[in-house]
Amino acid sequence: MQTYKAPLRDMRFVLQELHADFDTKGLPGLEDFTPDIADAILEEAAKFCTERLLPLNASGDEEGCRLENGVVRTPKGFPEAYRAFREGGWTAMGSDPAYGGQGLPAGINKLVEEMICSTNLSFGLYPGLSHGAYQAIQGHASEELKAAYLPKLVDGTWSGTMCLTEPHCGTDLGLLRTKAVPQGDGSYAITGSKIFISAGDHDLTENIIHLVLAKLPDAPKGVKGISLFLVPKFLPRADGTPGERNGVTCSALEHKMGIKASATCQMSFDDAKGWLVGEPHKGMRAMFTMMNSERLSVGIQGLGAGEAAYQGAVAYAKERLQGRSLVGAKRPDLAADPIIVHPDVRRMLMTIRAYNEGCRALGAWVARSLDVMERHPDPAERRRAEDFSALMTPIVKALFTDLGFESASIGMQVYGGHGFIRDHGMEQYVRDARISMIYEGTNGIQALDLVGRKLPAHAGRFLRSFFHPMLNALDEAIEDDDLAPLAQPLSKAFGALQLATAHIAQKGLKDPEEAGAAATEYLRLFGLVALGYMWLRSAKVAHTALRAGTDERDFYEAKLTTARFYMERILPQVAGLLAGVKAGKGAMMALDEAMF
Amino acid sequence: MQTYKAPLRDMRFVLQELHADFDTKGLPGLEDFTPDIADAILEEAAKFCTERLLPLNASGDEEGCRLENGVVRTPKGFPEAYRAFREGGWTAMGSDPAYGGQGLPAGINKLVEEMICSTNLSFGLYPGLSHGAYQAIQGHASEELKAAYLPKLVDGTWSGTMCLTEPHCGTDLGLLRTKAVPQGDGSYAITGSKIFISAGDHDLTENIIHLVLAKLPDAPKGVKGISLFLVPKFLPRADGTPGERNGVTCSALEHKMGIKASATCQMSFDDAKGWLVGEPHKGMRAMFTMMNSERLSVGIQGLGAGEAAYQGAVAYAKERLQGRSLVGAKRPDLAADPIIVHPDVRRMLMTIRAYNEGCRALGAWVARSLDVMERHPDPAERRRAEDFSALMTPIVKALFTDLGFESASIGMQVYGGHGFIRDHGMEQYVRDARISMIYEGTNGIQALDLVGRKLPAHAGRFLRSFFHPMLNALDEAIEDDDLAPLAQPLSKAFGALQLATAHIAQKGLKDPEEAGAAATEYLRLFGLVALGYMWLRSAKVAHTALRAGTDERDFYEAKLTTARFYMERILPQVAGLLAGVKAGKGAMMALDEAMF
Repeated sequence: MQTYKAPLRDMRFVLQELHADFDTKGLPGLEDFTPDIADAILEEAAKFCTERLLPLNASGDEEGCRLENGVVRTPKGFPEAYRAFREGGWTAMGSDPAYGGQGLPAGINKLVEEMICSTNLSFGLYPGLSHGAYQAIQGHASEELKAAYLPKLVDGTWSGTMCLTEPHCGTDLGLLRTKAVPQGDGSYAITGSKIFISAGDHDLTENIIHLVLAKLPDAPKGVKGISLFLVPKFLPRADGTPGERNGVTCSALEHKMGIKASATCQMSFDDAKGWLVGEPHKGMRAMFTMMNSERLSVGIQGLGAGEAAYQGAVAYAKERLQGRSLVGAKRPDLAADPIIVHPDVRRMLMTIRAYNEGCRALGAWVARSLDVMERHPDPAERRRAEDFSALMTPIVKALFTDLGFESASIGMQVYGGHGFIRDHGMEQYVRDARISMIYEGTNGIQALDLVGRKLPAHAGRFLRSFFHPMLNALDEAIEDDDLAPLAQPLSKAFGALQLATAHIAQKGLKDPEEAGAAATEYLRLFGLVALGYMWLRSAKVAHTALRAGTDERDFYEAKLTTARFYMERILPQVAGLLAGVKAGKGAMMALDEAMF
Repeated sequence: MQTYKAPLRDMRFVLQELHADFDTKGLPGLEDFTPDIADAILEEAAKFCTERLLPLNASGDEEGCRLENGVVRTPKGFPEAYRAFREGGWTAMGSDPAYGGQGLPAGINKLVEEMICSTNLSFGLYPGLSHGAYQAIQGHASEELKAAYLPKLVDGTWSGTMCLTEPHCGTDLGLLRTKAVPQGDGSYAITGSKIFISAGDHDLTENIIHLVLAKLPDAPKGVKGISLFLVPKFLPRADGTPGERNGVTCSALEHKMGIKASATCQMSFDDAKGWLVGEPHKGMRAMFTMMNSERLSVGIQGLGAGEAAYQGAVAYAKERLQGRSLVGAKRPDLAADPIIVHPDVRRMLMTIRAYNEGCRALGAWVARSLDVMERHPDPAERRRAEDFSALMTPIVKALFTDLGFESASIGMQVYGGHGFIRDHGMEQYVRDARISMIYEGTNGIQALDLVGRKLPAHAGRFLRSFFHPMLNALDEAIEDDDLAPLAQPLSKAFGALQLATAHIAQKGLKDPEEAGAAATEYLRLFGLVALGYMWLRSAKVAHTALRAGTDERDFYEAKLTTARFYMERILPQVAGLLAGVKAGKGAMMALDEAMF
């Protein structure tokens, strides 16, 4: 049985204590989201996720989706849960009030997303994709299209998809073949095949709005010749209700390792009627504007899996009796001690815990920067926030999903053989979490984005949005007796990050393969330092609370212990990563292709 | 489509070049296994695995096993493949000629096992478990039982199981509840429930011989009160044919993440007739004598998965066209370059390659030591080999399976989204490989075995069986201009291993939790150094061949490149691991149980 209790205390910690000093209070349009309101929203979300989504997680995985007479059926209970989700207003969370949205800040949204991903990742993909479509339309479509489609996407009666991948191209979209032919009436006829389309078809909504990348007849070659089109499953009538069936069908469902309750579709477009979103040949630009938010969301999926795995593993570690503590029986009244007494079990639990709380803190910081970037009255603040979110997006996406998968696997390991069988649901977390390392740009692509685009941008300006606050915090912490033991190893690790950055800047400029060869290790190094920074800041908040005589001593002391665990046992990995970065491309690229 | 070509060249390398200087030639009983014979066996095994087992791997996973009217049905094709396996003499490989076995050395056997695990891990478990049962009977049973059962297990007409785990106990077998009541006629009535029993029931053989751990009425508490019993599914008649049905049934099949074509059974023993194997209450000893070989075999499962993943990933990396090389198009004739041109793809392939070849070399060394330990005329040599295999067994088991799972996941990552769907078979490798980290003692238990039993044994004598040859090799290599660039980082890593060992010896003596807290990181550190040693020795062989003007320059140069990659990009992880070992148990054990 999968169990889950939303980590509300820790969510409040990151939202209202850890990041409270950042200049994001009182952003125009967010005045109403006081701590009380935020708490109420998170509590409601926790209730919904635990009561409605969690019970469908294992059964949805077991049953999967079916394609019946051209229509995709989601697993038992999904349509009802979706209706409740929609009626509860959850599809409208992050959307513009102008279209019926609730205008919640990303800072809160991403925490709700974490709960959804912990309790039912497959379910979460349906509204998740809709929101992606919403963003693309809102950012780039004509007022006419916006008026016709956004309210329906926001209230969840319609849903959306992103149709990018084709059988022969995913990462390299420049190769895509789907065609769009102008019909002279402002519409286009779209023809082509798409694969891996999440929520491509299903029975949750009365209409599905596909955002499709395709090429116009006069398109330049490569990624500069891609346009974005809106293609509804049913063409809306004048009154806004779904009318005639459009030429788009789900031709097959993909059979996958995990997220089996999410309908991953092969889609056929056969002279389907569509409308251009944004300018001709500028489809990739429209994609990129929504990418920071989407990639952050996929990172959050990793965190969601990690949190679910942690809770499952803790429950079992407290309950499973096996062996005795190495220093003498702790529970002589029982046949054996619970396995949580064993150091190696502690190592596993503490590792996941340190990952999760660190990622939650970092994710919340990046989410806040999205709000600042969108709303802050001061252009300099907006720009700084934009720099920061651009820099951190690939890190969050790749790091969180790598760690989430690792955490799911560790959580399963705590169960031993009972983790490998289906009964406890731990193996589902492993299978479900694995996809997040792949979609929305594989983690290798994230690393290339970091070293190839984000580092060199504006002569390193993005980097400063992270380095400056971190340096200031380190300088301050080194002088603080309580924090110095944490700040010292972190300072060393930050030095490794600076060396690695300099190395890539220097070598990568001359030879892009050198940057490519260092990319994955560099991203991980950066990510571990960033988590370390979050742990240092968390420890500072904890010390302050303890000094002030908090009545939640246990909570803050656990923060300090976990911070110390992180610095002692996770952060030291940076030494090996720096060595990898400095090794260069030599041995990596030397082998002739035929020798593999 | 899963593909596989046995890495015969590399197998010959480890068997006849890398370990040729070890004192294992001309062992009594192995005189016939000349290099030519070994080659012929490996080639035949490769043929069988590729032609018979590989085609059933994906279909077996898809179909799984079924329990029908109390009988387990294996997937389509499995009974026929097993018959061919048996008729080919493969069940008899490692068994004593006195019972119809072929008496092959472990050095060859384990390479054949690797091929079986690469092509069909689920299938391999059936004969694998039989061999475990064979070893327990051969080592401990009466002559009467041996004569009645061994020839049938050896020729494969009967198969075997190991029934250890019960619902409430796995790692801590002292808790087990299955009872054995003497019947006064030399037999015992066995009653109890066992779970996770691989090959517990199936339709491949006419009889199944269960080796069951149970407690006699007068059994002392805990692991010192466990006895081992032989319980056949059908009681043999006087003529040796299967007779009356015994009181043992498969009550259910486990539903698992992977190895779905392997029947993992819940078994009920209800006054089943059995016979004692070995002495009363000494069942654990009988288990332990076969454990080195069995745990090495599970380690080899990890390597098998890694090799399959490597080959699958390489095939795709050469074929999939996506993007252009960062230094300019390599295949301007094509729409895009094959992804093997990208450094990050190279990183993934080289990582798996370095793991696989390193593990194959180390596994072969440990396998040879099993042969020496069993057959060498000099007792000192036998003892040294026994020390070495005892020391390396937990390392091989845990390291190989950790790396095998990691490799399977990396191999899948090379495929991007195409790895997550079932079509290419990559996700099956991930699911199948995962179990090897758990069974035959979880990897955490292996680490405890290493620090708790193997390190302190005989005042560190086991350790010397590895440290001495490694130190000699390092001393020699440092003086060799060709090898020094590899020997230098390895020497540093070896220093880290020595420091970590000293730390554990000192702290762990006073407080066993300190040893437990360091165990997993220590095992990984040790394992990475051991692989590094294999790479140094491989490089030495390669340099010698190149100096001698070999006509296989490509092969040996690839060895040198991969050795360099290993030293530059994998081995540096030891720094972080040493820091973890030295951090001690403080932060790991500090948190109150209630705070998790």
